[in-house]
Amino acid sequence: MKRIGKSTLEFETPPCVLSSAAVVGKKEAEGPLGADFDQTFEDTTLQQDSWEKAEAQLQKEAVSLAIDRSGLGKQDMDFIFAGDLLNQCISSTFGLLEFGIPFLGQYGACSTMAQTLFLSAVMVESGAARRAVAVTSSHFCSAERQFRTPLEYGAQRTPTAQWTATASGCAVLAREGEIQVTRGLAGKVVDLGVKDPANMGAAMAPAAAQSIYEFLEDTGASPEEYDGIFTGDLGLVGSRLLCELLEGNGINLSKVHRDCGLMIYDLEKQDVHAGGSGCGCSASVLCGHILKRMRKKELQKILFCATGALMSPTSSQQGENIPGVCHVLELRTRGGHS
Amino acid sequence: MKRIGKSTLEFETPPCVLSSAAVVGKKEAEGPLGADFDQTFEDTTLQQDSWEKAEAQLQKEAVSLAIDRSGLGKQDMDFIFAGDLLNQCISSTFGLLEFGIPFLGQYGACSTMAQTLFLSAVMVESGAARRAVAVTSSHFCSAERQFRTPLEYGAQRTPTAQWTATASGCAVLAREGEIQVTRGLAGKVVDLGVKDPANMGAAMAPAAAQSIYEFLEDTGASPEEYDGIFTGDLGLVGSRLLCELLEGNGINLSKVHRDCGLMIYDLEKQDVHAGGSGCGCSASVLCGHILKRMRKKELQKILFCATGALMSPTSSQQGENIPGVCHVLELRTRGGHS
Repeated sequence: MKRIGKSTLEFETPPCVLSSAAVVGKKEAEGPLGADFDQTFEDTTLQQDSWEKAEAQLQKEAVSLAIDRSGLGKQDMDFIFAGDLLNQCISSTFGLLEFGIPFLGQYGACSTMAQTLFLSAVMVESGAARRAVAVTSSHFCSAERQFRTPLEYGAQRTPTAQWTATASGCAVLAREGEIQVTRGLAGKVVDLGVKDPANMGAAMAPAAAQSIYEFLEDTGASPEEYDGIFTGDLGLVGSRLLCELLEGNGINLSKVHRDCGLMIYDLEKQDVHAGGSGCGCSASVLCGHILKRMRKKELQKILFCATGALMSPTSSQQGENIPGVCHVLELRTRGGHS
Repeated sequence: MKRIGKSTLEFETPPCVLSSAAVVGKKEAEGPLGADFDQTFEDTTLQQDSWEKAEAQLQKEAVSLAIDRSGLGKQDMDFIFAGDLLNQCISSTFGLLEFGIPFLGQYGACSTMAQTLFLSAVMVESGAARRAVAVTSSHFCSAERQFRTPLEYGAQRTPTAQWTATASGCAVLAREGEIQVTRGLAGKVVDLGVKDPANMGAAMAPAAAQSIYEFLEDTGASPEEYDGIFTGDLGLVGSRLLCELLEGNGINLSKVHRDCGLMIYDLEKQDVHAGGSGCGCSASVLCGHILKRMRKKELQKILFCATGALMSPTSSQQGENIPGVCHVLELRTRGGHS
């Protein structure tokens, strides 16, 4: 691989998506992308006795399915990069325990899917891995009680609040496959002073703007070259801010920008306020919807820009800002337009 | 790089430690390795108004010092791999915010220093980075209130309990330097059913045994080849278990095994019960003590095997086991014995 511009990596022998899977809960199954997910759970407890275990089970199901589809076994996977939103990333630890794959835990908040894909791609291209697994998850009920209030309180949600997706997405990267990871950029942490934990979109938009701007600068690419520039979970508020911030830098993103948080739910009918969020949101939209459309060549060249809000309830209670981060990956279909 | 055996990476153009730094609190400064640390803080609040911010400050100081010593600036660092024990890894986020280095958050509990070094080494050897920064931290007071009880309760500690080090260690990896990272192995998550959160050493020992066993199998190396095989924070209980577990597999580790958790404090005088622990324990012992001895050629070839307990208070309260993980890195002085 080689470095281009200031911060972008170009994969010269691009690692590929060998297989992928997305599993989701009831609400996500009822949304506009419902048919794209590989497995849906009407009962969001997944027959587990805690929400945390239910989320771990989501990750387990996504990884099982993705590995099955690769035509290989878990013993053929050299590394697994996994993370989630729970304290000490326990969905990943407990969900993936029985696979016995060398484990490198990641924490990028809702940017985790892009981060795990980025590192998996580096491992495969460099020869460190023959195959690497990237996975993340989130669960509405485990996230609400950890980050906000237990569901039982029935707290009111603000109009800027987003709905944590109950979902997991997993991709297996390898040397062979139809969809290539061609470039990547790891983002810097950006803090423009947003403090409202019920408005994560606003907190993350500056990071998305900076990473997308740097990527386009480094590569000389224009937004129109892409069939879609997909952010993770900026929602209604953050998406508008992203487009405004980039417009201030002479970049018009509006024609190609989509946000996974706005795609996964029907905002008019599903009462999710400003859209979806959570690691599992962008992970399931990528591994379910986007990669499927790429396999059908309906999309040939895209940017996947998952965004994360790097805060904790403790840091917010201590009056700290909410810093954001965004990692960018360029994906192309083999033989698609350049 | 190439893969050898089942799970080990051999770096063919080994990445090097360009510079490093270790900063610690008062108790660590009073321990047997006190003179090896680069900066010590008598006031463990570091003039911050919360323990979490004090820990973030520790990381900031360690990174500043390590980058200063590299003779380069923060703009010359291509990636920073950072993590800590706090929920959502906020010490890393807030401590490293102002450096503006592309940020990849890691969660490996107390194995984090080995994990960040491993990934930094892959980035440098593969050409993804010219230089990569590996850092982690822990703080006794932030860890106690998050994982156990607030200090104000004055709770009794069990004889198997360990003392979370107030410390941070940072290493800058690059192509040039006196100390090389020659091999690495990312561990699998191992769960032998230990449930006692006041006995982390016992929970992590099986992971250490498995990773060290696999590394020696893959490489054909024997323990005696090393001037030291350093585990992270197994403490008194875990260290004994590690040696017993490996003895059962025909490997005698006793002559070369050292544990950073047993080195950092004087167990007779400092009332730390079974030894030190926390991400910052192995990080500061590596970046302070071990690397200094390697620079003086008192140590020429070592294994650094940081261990992590991948639990959360929630998982323990829900009755789950405490799975462990251990990543192994081989470090050599340039021109040292082979």
